[in-house]
Amino acid sequence: MGKGRLEAFSDGVIAIIITIMVLELKVPGEHSLASLAPLAPVLLSYVLSFGYVGIYWNNHHHMLSTIHKVSGAVLWANLHLLFWLSLFPFTTAWMGENHFAAVPTAVYGLVLLMAALAYLILQQALIAADGQGSVLRRAVGSDWKGKLSPALYLAGIALTLWRSWAGQVIYVLAALLWLIPDRRIEKVVHD
Amino acid sequence: MGKGRLEAFSDGVIAIIITIMVLELKVPGEHSLASLAPLAPVLLSYVLSFGYVGIYWNNHHHMLSTIHKVSGAVLWANLHLLFWLSLFPFTTAWMGENHFAAVPTAVYGLVLLMAALAYLILQQALIAADGQGSVLRRAVGSDWKGKLSPALYLAGIALTLWRSWAGQVIYVLAALLWLIPDRRIEKVVHD
Amino acid sequence: MGKGRLEAFSDGVIAIIITIMVLELKVPGEHSLASLAPLAPVLLSYVLSFGYVGIYWNNHHHMLSTIHKVSGAVLWANLHLLFWLSLFPFTTAWMGENHFAAVPTAVYGLVLLMAALAYLILQQALIAADGQGSVLRRAVGSDWKGKLSPALYLAGIALTLWRSWAGQVIYVLAALLWLIPDRRIEKVVHD
Amino acid sequence: MGKGRLEAFSDGVIAIIITIMVLELKVPGEHSLASLAPLAPVLLSYVLSFGYVGIYWNNHHHMLSTIHKVSGAVLWANLHLLFWLSLFPFTTAWMGENHFAAVPTAVYGLVLLMAALAYLILQQALIAADGQGSVLRRAVGSDWKGKLSPALYLAGIALTLWRSWAGQVIYVLAALLWLIPDRRIEKVVHD
Repeated sequence: MGKGRLEAFSDGVIAIIITIMVLELKVPGEHSLASLAPLAPVLLSYVLSFGYVGIYWNNHHHMLSTIHKVSGAVLWANLHLLFWLSLFPFTTAWMGENHFAAVPTAVYGLVLLMAALAYLILQQALIAADGQGSVLRRAVGSDWKGKLSPALYLAGIALTLWRSWAGQVIYVLAALLWLIPDRRIEKVVHD
Repeated sequence: MGKGRLEAFSDGVIAIIITIMVLELKVPGEHSLASLAPLAPVLLSYVLSFGYVGIYWNNHHHMLSTIHKVSGAVLWANLHLLFWLSLFPFTTAWMGENHFAAVPTAVYGLVLLMAALAYLILQQALIAADGQGSVLRRAVGSDWKGKLSPALYLAGIALTLWRSWAGQVIYVLAALLWLIPDRRIEKVVHD
Repeated sequence: MGKGRLEAFSDGVIAIIITIMVLELKVPGEHSLASLAPLAPVLLSYVLSFGYVGIYWNNHHHMLSTIHKVSGAVLWANLHLLFWLSLFPFTTAWMGENHFAAVPTAVYGLVLLMAALAYLILQQALIAADGQGSVLRRAVGSDWKGKLSPALYLAGIALTLWRSWAGQVIYVLAALLWLIPDRRIEKVVHD
Repeated sequence: MGKGRLEAFSDGVIAIIITIMVLELKVPGEHSLASLAPLAPVLLSYVLSFGYVGIYWNNHHHMLSTIHKVSGAVLWANLHLLFWLSLFPFTTAWMGENHFAAVPTAVYGLVLLMAALAYLILQQALIAADGQGSVLRRAVGSDWKGKLSPALYLAGIALTLWRSWAGQVIYVLAALLWLIPDRRIEKVVHD
């Protein structure tokens, strides 16, 4: 079974998720610059989530580029990942509209955590489908980022019980971790 | 006529359907954990429909993978299927927001039934377009799942007159039926 | 310049247009079967527009399948068509929510008319870009459907001044005209 | 790394942006022709933004057509461009609903400016990824349009402090500048 439609469908869903988040930026009823001020937390929350969805798309793109075969398990593992990503618009809006209060921040982190776990499951399903000598298996290696991220999200969720900004700092750091270019896949492919 | 754009268009519509359903998860006005409780039925309803739309995408993907030619009848049969799928966001939200009351549950089942029939019609149109020796014809075989599903949805709709949870149980069972991997198409292709 | 991205972008926009129309089917506040009754005109209006957008997608698909080159003029003519199609969700909802009153019905017809003219302009731009011996030029021939449709929409708009149902009958007939399979393109291609 | 998914994802996001803008055309509560009048500024604002998003899609399409390789920096520069484009529905609606008042017009110009700068950054990232002898580098040349546009948007923003219509005139002129066909890329490719 080819991977073309899996990529196309995932691109479609991720493109819609990243775009409908902006619908939560509700147009103010008046036209003063001051009327934009209450939107600042919603915009900040949107920027963070836009970054996260962008990271997932980039990583998905990278991961699939090394793969030749997909299985039924891969299709379901991919849908499972898309499910958790589809909850980003909800948690993004809830966190932004409530000015980064503790509970919405913790729930935001919970969805980040579930998406990270779903990504790891998809990675395993792809390696299993790809068979012996999988380029992805070698490329992933010890995968410290993939394993560190869920731990960071857990830490972020726990920290919101103390101070919600501490949780947000952790989420931002976890995102920046992924912005550092990952040379593993290119390296293994080029060897 | 190639099948590429048929797949691309269907992927686009299905990706949008699966994603706009999440817009019915309305962001609560306050930030307590308790304010999420009323969303539980809407979320459950969303999970069920996400699963169903995912099943349709998977099956559509599988079915089209065996096909080389599409006809005008196939294009219309495909649009007919997409029409019924496009009503999922409406019935999902109505059922969820009304806490799985009997009438919305029955209407939800009716749309499931119509989509299942539309899928069978598309299958026939594809077999007809594919001509003699169609791989799909052999792969589909007696197609007990395709024929059992509409009967299950009918039973589910009828049971909502007695107890609405009984209808929901049937819908969930019918979905699980499709999660069991279907080896027919791979088997015939690999023979 | 390849036609691949033109097709992909058009498929995306048309897929979104056909799907967001369903958002106008507002979920009723209660769960009786009677609460669905007021939605009947909105649903009917949606069915008509779903058919029209499906027809445009089918015809677009057909027309592009004969083409090898696209020009800058084609890109703009295509965007112009997509602009008029993007107004369908608005006119569909306005006509449906107002129970097919005269003014919204006339405006609905006006957008149909503009889309039909935009389609003819795109056809001309494609023929011009395709050069001498264009398959599309021969396939289109006298193009009685493409020329009859705008006349029908004009007649429909005029008839709404008398009775709005008369306009709707014309719009339905004009849609049915396109459902009759068009063998011209296949015929010329196969000669 | 191939450019196929980058194009597909960008097409998806741009297609959604161009289409959800139309959701701001709120369906009037009544069915008189007069009830459409208050929508005129929203529609005008939509037409301008539809044109701009169409221009970005066309230019993106052109620019990518000359490119063979994409890098990690290109993926992020592309997401950065999509971020600013994703704010168009917000600024379009705000400007339209407030009848082109000064502040929303200036903010609209600010988002135009940021998108134009993001486009220039993407262009540089593509040239850097494409290596020596990049067709794009030669095609872009002195790129007077790309450099003039941000200056025009800045001028437009400044002029809104005097008269908001003056800013809008500048935005329209800057759009028309791009409608004039750009032969640079075709010319270099054909040399």
